[in-house]
Amino acid sequence: MTTEQTDAQIANALKAVAARENVTDIFFVACGGSYAQMLPNQYIVEREAKAIIGNALNAAEFKARAPKRLGKNSIVIALSHSGTTPETVEAVKIARAAGALTISLTHDLGSPLDQASEFTVSYFFSPMTMSPTHAAAVLARLTFGILKLREGNAKAEDLDKGLAMLPTAVDELIAERQREILQFAEAHKREAIIYTMASGPNFGPAYSFAICLLQEMQWVHSAAIHAGEYFHGPFEITDFDVPFIQLIGVGPSRPIDERALTFVKKFSQRVTVLDANDLGINSLPASVSEYLAPLVFMPILRVYADKLSDAKGHPLTVRRFMWKMEY
Amino acid sequence: MTTEQTDAQIANALKAVAARENVTDIFFVACGGSYAQMLPNQYIVEREAKAIIGNALNAAEFKARAPKRLGKNSIVIALSHSGTTPETVEAVKIARAAGALTISLTHDLGSPLDQASEFTVSYFFSPMTMSPTHAAAVLARLTFGILKLREGNAKAEDLDKGLAMLPTAVDELIAERQREILQFAEAHKREAIIYTMASGPNFGPAYSFAICLLQEMQWVHSAAIHAGEYFHGPFEITDFDVPFIQLIGVGPSRPIDERALTFVKKFSQRVTVLDANDLGINSLPASVSEYLAPLVFMPILRVYADKLSDAKGHPLTVRRFMWKMEY
Repeated sequence: MTTEQTDAQIANALKAVAARENVTDIFFVACGGSYAQMLPNQYIVEREAKAIIGNALNAAEFKARAPKRLGKNSIVIALSHSGTTPETVEAVKIARAAGALTISLTHDLGSPLDQASEFTVSYFFSPMTMSPTHAAAVLARLTFGILKLREGNAKAEDLDKGLAMLPTAVDELIAERQREILQFAEAHKREAIIYTMASGPNFGPAYSFAICLLQEMQWVHSAAIHAGEYFHGPFEITDFDVPFIQLIGVGPSRPIDERALTFVKKFSQRVTVLDANDLGINSLPASVSEYLAPLVFMPILRVYADKLSDAKGHPLTVRRFMWKMEY
Repeated sequence: MTTEQTDAQIANALKAVAARENVTDIFFVACGGSYAQMLPNQYIVEREAKAIIGNALNAAEFKARAPKRLGKNSIVIALSHSGTTPETVEAVKIARAAGALTISLTHDLGSPLDQASEFTVSYFFSPMTMSPTHAAAVLARLTFGILKLREGNAKAEDLDKGLAMLPTAVDELIAERQREILQFAEAHKREAIIYTMASGPNFGPAYSFAICLLQEMQWVHSAAIHAGEYFHGPFEITDFDVPFIQLIGVGPSRPIDERALTFVKKFSQRVTVLDANDLGINSLPASVSEYLAPLVFMPILRVYADKLSDAKGHPLTVRRFMWKMEY
């Protein structure tokens, strides 16, 4: 694919959004790491929409819940990298049969997901970089595009400005951080468990790092702890030797992150902090910086995982179950 | 409190629900174990409501997101056992100032939460039993009560019938299960990590067991894995010696649970299964049995934790941080 193709596919899908008589709901439907990429978009809708509902659901859960509201006033946005995730393909079929407008993201045009969806957007895949045509960016463009067309939300332009700055910003950031990322990798290569912690729009990247990078690709036990939930249970497992990776966002959820950080640093000597304020987020357009933070955290976290995998001698591509058997 | 008082408080709150000109949203707002009790209610609304939106949010996250939709057409249901959780009290104040109808559950009439809320319901607290006046039951009664008044949902009567059966059913079940619960406790008393797994309405109890019973009260590492997400990352940490507690529900999410169970049992020798079908859920009114399953899982899981704490010699009341310092 080319940037022009992705741009045209987004424009095409948004033309259909504009043509709908009414839009009341956006369902964001996917599994695993793709589901994690939906979470910041539910956050965007909850923060920005006057009336439209945003609801991110695991695709199997979407099918089981079969929300009664699903219908011709719904938009269903789905994501599956291979385009073959059966639950996601089935969810899109159900949604389309119910009259919803279906827009899918997949890396493989021609895949079952592409075939099942009314509209498909293909994207650029390179997990240690970020650009306006990466999946996470395409999702944000669709979300703000819908809010612009249906509710007059004025932030799509700032979003585009910010996204255009990300390729260089992320590359430079990763280059600058090499030394401390390598130190993290060496220091954590023998850990059996590493927690992640975040809130607001950054819970998605924290969840993705826990379940895809640590559990799936490194066989390290993990859980994403919501920083606002930390004090209501999880914090009791904090101890001097329990490792945490904490994301500190910008915007209104930042105080939640900061409160958790103050505590966790007091009782654990193994806290790795990624603070959006130190990652250049503040040089992005202020009206959308909180929404762009997850798009900066994602590629940087991928480099953390990449270096951890080098230090462990356990490549990110190794699996014992996935792709190896029926399940 | 007495049953009559709780019933009257619920009736009183529902009278205000009926009197509202319009209701578009129910926000379920709490922290930790109380937040976990909200999750099945979001599930109920998504399954049952024609138009009303259900949204369960951690109270700090609720404040940070400040959903634009919050206003005079919103109902905010909050829960804090002590009635002192600052985030929850603040969320209710914000909601009330925005014109939302506020209904809070607390065990302490006179607490800050009670004072902040327009309506308060007190409940019966005894975590190894279940009754129509336990907090989880009160929440379900409020949710179905709202759906009845605003959308003509006809299941409130079945819910009441089912709830009336629970006290005896749960007591008998726990008595029958003593031996296997003790076996679980002995077999897991030295485990450093125990995962929980569930989907649909039972993700709440699985989450609560992970963060409150295991992490908070037993200092055991844990994470609640959504059974629909299991195959998209977490399943790679499955091995012969990795312990899981899996809840198998009834209703449309059951196939999600069963698929995960088939796999996890193949590769782990440490799987504890609580199947709603074996727990008498099928003798409850069919139209609401899926919603009552979490109310059966909760007290039984509490007994599992209670016996585990005996076997470990680590009382459920012990804390190193909670209530012991400012945070």
